[in-house]
Amino acid sequence: MKLLIIGAGGVGTSAAMIISRAGKEGEWAEKIVVSDYNFARAEEVAKLCGGGRFVAEKINAKDKENMKEVIKKHDITFVMNAVEPDFNENIFDTCLEVGVGYLDCAMTLSKRHPEKPYELAYIKLGDYQFDKHEEWEKAGNMAIVGSGVEPGMADVFARYAAKHLFDTIDEVNVRDGDNYEIPGYEGVAFGFSVWTTIEECLNPPVIWEKGKGWFCTESFSEPEIFNFPGGIGDVEVINVEHEEVLLVPRVIDCNRVTFKYGVPREMRQLLKDLEACGMDSATRMIKVGDSEISPRDFLVKVVPNPIELAPKMVGKGCAGTWVTGTKDGKRRSVYLYQVADNQDCIKKYTTNSVVAQTAVGPVIMMELVAKGIWDIKGVHGPESFDPDPFVERLAKYDFPAGIREMDSEYSDALNEKRLLDALGV
Amino acid sequence: MKLLIIGAGGVGTSAAMIISRAGKEGEWAEKIVVSDYNFARAEEVAKLCGGGRFVAEKINAKDKENMKEVIKKHDITFVMNAVEPDFNENIFDTCLEVGVGYLDCAMTLSKRHPEKPYELAYIKLGDYQFDKHEEWEKAGNMAIVGSGVEPGMADVFARYAAKHLFDTIDEVNVRDGDNYEIPGYEGVAFGFSVWTTIEECLNPPVIWEKGKGWFCTESFSEPEIFNFPGGIGDVEVINVEHEEVLLVPRVIDCNRVTFKYGVPREMRQLLKDLEACGMDSATRMIKVGDSEISPRDFLVKVVPNPIELAPKMVGKGCAGTWVTGTKDGKRRSVYLYQVADNQDCIKKYTTNSVVAQTAVGPVIMMELVAKGIWDIKGVHGPESFDPDPFVERLAKYDFPAGIREMDSEYSDALNEKRLLDALGV
Repeated sequence: MKLLIIGAGGVGTSAAMIISRAGKEGEWAEKIVVSDYNFARAEEVAKLCGGGRFVAEKINAKDKENMKEVIKKHDITFVMNAVEPDFNENIFDTCLEVGVGYLDCAMTLSKRHPEKPYELAYIKLGDYQFDKHEEWEKAGNMAIVGSGVEPGMADVFARYAAKHLFDTIDEVNVRDGDNYEIPGYEGVAFGFSVWTTIEECLNPPVIWEKGKGWFCTESFSEPEIFNFPGGIGDVEVINVEHEEVLLVPRVIDCNRVTFKYGVPREMRQLLKDLEACGMDSATRMIKVGDSEISPRDFLVKVVPNPIELAPKMVGKGCAGTWVTGTKDGKRRSVYLYQVADNQDCIKKYTTNSVVAQTAVGPVIMMELVAKGIWDIKGVHGPESFDPDPFVERLAKYDFPAGIREMDSEYSDALNEKRLLDALGV
Repeated sequence: MKLLIIGAGGVGTSAAMIISRAGKEGEWAEKIVVSDYNFARAEEVAKLCGGGRFVAEKINAKDKENMKEVIKKHDITFVMNAVEPDFNENIFDTCLEVGVGYLDCAMTLSKRHPEKPYELAYIKLGDYQFDKHEEWEKAGNMAIVGSGVEPGMADVFARYAAKHLFDTIDEVNVRDGDNYEIPGYEGVAFGFSVWTTIEECLNPPVIWEKGKGWFCTESFSEPEIFNFPGGIGDVEVINVEHEEVLLVPRVIDCNRVTFKYGVPREMRQLLKDLEACGMDSATRMIKVGDSEISPRDFLVKVVPNPIELAPKMVGKGCAGTWVTGTKDGKRRSVYLYQVADNQDCIKKYTTNSVVAQTAVGPVIMMELVAKGIWDIKGVHGPESFDPDPFVERLAKYDFPAGIREMDSEYSDALNEKRLLDALGV
């Protein structure tokens, strides 16, 4: 596979570093073009990965012709989109036009319902992409959308549970929590992209239910205490808008799909306060001198940069999928998860744990595509594919997964096993 | 008096309208030049006031030479500074240089202590101005600083209490509360200048104590429930930085001076959240295209404009001074106050009650200066002058004051009297 990574931010950097660190296991990628609007940044990452098959290019993700030139120049066969999701449509369409494979970590953006935004779904995450499924299928090309950790690994876990652990599934609930902190720091700390945090936290959360379909709720609805493994413990999680809710019910037969993550109450209030002031808007343009900027883009320039804060952060983050249903006629409840330590990821990949976790999913999926193991034409989420080869590779890439039986008859400690043990690998 | 009003925003407009509505009683002002950087706005206000002695000019408060030209052209004898306080130094110095009287509603700005901002006072409100007192005195010129409602009317009330109601004073506590609301509105509503609200709420609050002098505390410290007259009732008030604390102890012998006002808990949190994000900064410059702007100036462009919200607001605001001490050997506790109704002020002055209340103090003080009743050379706060002629004029200008004996032996209702009744006028 000749791979073009568009965007040398956190996720793009981590992906390149994971491939580089995998050594022989990463040789399915014969060429990796790391590209960014900031060429110096792309060069830095290519150098960090040891050069050789890692090559830097300047790219403008707003400019289709420019992307086509780079694809042609390097004879690219597959594109990994690692930029902010407002570029998705442009990159996705370019790949279809030139006939190269496509993968992203966040799907095309939603639009809230004009009258009842906290009640009815309207334009949903990924609608733009799934509407073009048949065009991609007809072209014999494939796009994997939502391929990071959440969405991405979490979707694979849902499919894994459906394949191996359940006869019938009731609920698929993606749950994400952490115990990150920056010792001695008192300011506001965004764990990842400020732009995306605002987008997913302040958009009306979406839920799917059999019979009812997709619907929206108030921001931060249905708070719930979820006990996370890896020493993280109890975290209050709340509904936010996330891709898994759009992806899972397309493929997996179940009754309800939700996504909740742990946004501390102080951060929720801060986000609501920014919204009340209008500082969240990504569409309203404010004139400054002869230029224009949206309040959200301006805010990103002002708040402490997550990339600069990341090296000071300690603690672990857990991403996973909690599935309930029946097996052999008995009620079952299982949480499949991956825990990453921030300082550990900084050391290995130079990037924080959230982006490193986000990057490993695409790397594994691209390996499976390169080897012809994952091969279904059209536009698909990760749950469309066989989960086993993905799960097998998690430990190989140094992101081992775990499994926890949630039945009250077992103690938690006894039932925390490596997912690979459960698989018998 | 030939008067130049610099700034045709809320306060400048209200001042011109109050003079205009006073008819014969306002004839002490033979000419009123309403000036603004936005000439169209100045013209609009001059027209609103009936033209004639009300004349419009364009002015640039950053440009001393331009201000001097306007002063010379209209043979100005007195300047009312009604712009944001960051222009104070420039306007104040211009008036000394050309030898015309000066008055402002907010004093020159403070700078927080570089090491212990929430403990020690550093450069205080008005320091720049009081440092030039002797220059003004020697020039035979007068500047009245902090002449609005708070500071301004509240300082006059403190002096009135010292003159008539007490033998010894223990505490002078300025207290401000309201019951403003916009029916059906759910967004964030700033009651007055967003810039100034941030400045006074997020700067470390200052307190004065005999023996200790001026010192600072944490933001929003010492919450207290104060019962306001005029149907407003109980409001939780907290310490913020305000000029009265700097002015009163210079002139009035007492033990403690504080300023508290009612900032709803939600608004306090919102302000702290903006601070945490760095959106409060007025000094850091952020590049946008080829221009630069401070986060606070950008925020002002984004949040709902208080001037547009004001006409929808209902309720009353109370400004006043709570004085404790002894009279005839007995403990006494008195609140002197002025209550204004927002819709009433909109009708009369086209401006909201906060700015109308702010504007009446300067108008009365300028009348007293014009008639030679207030005449002390140098730089002074309102408590330096005889309070009686000011208090007498409040009702004449349609802003009647009240007095409430706070002793528990009396019921509140029985003891609410017009201040003029107490005076026996």
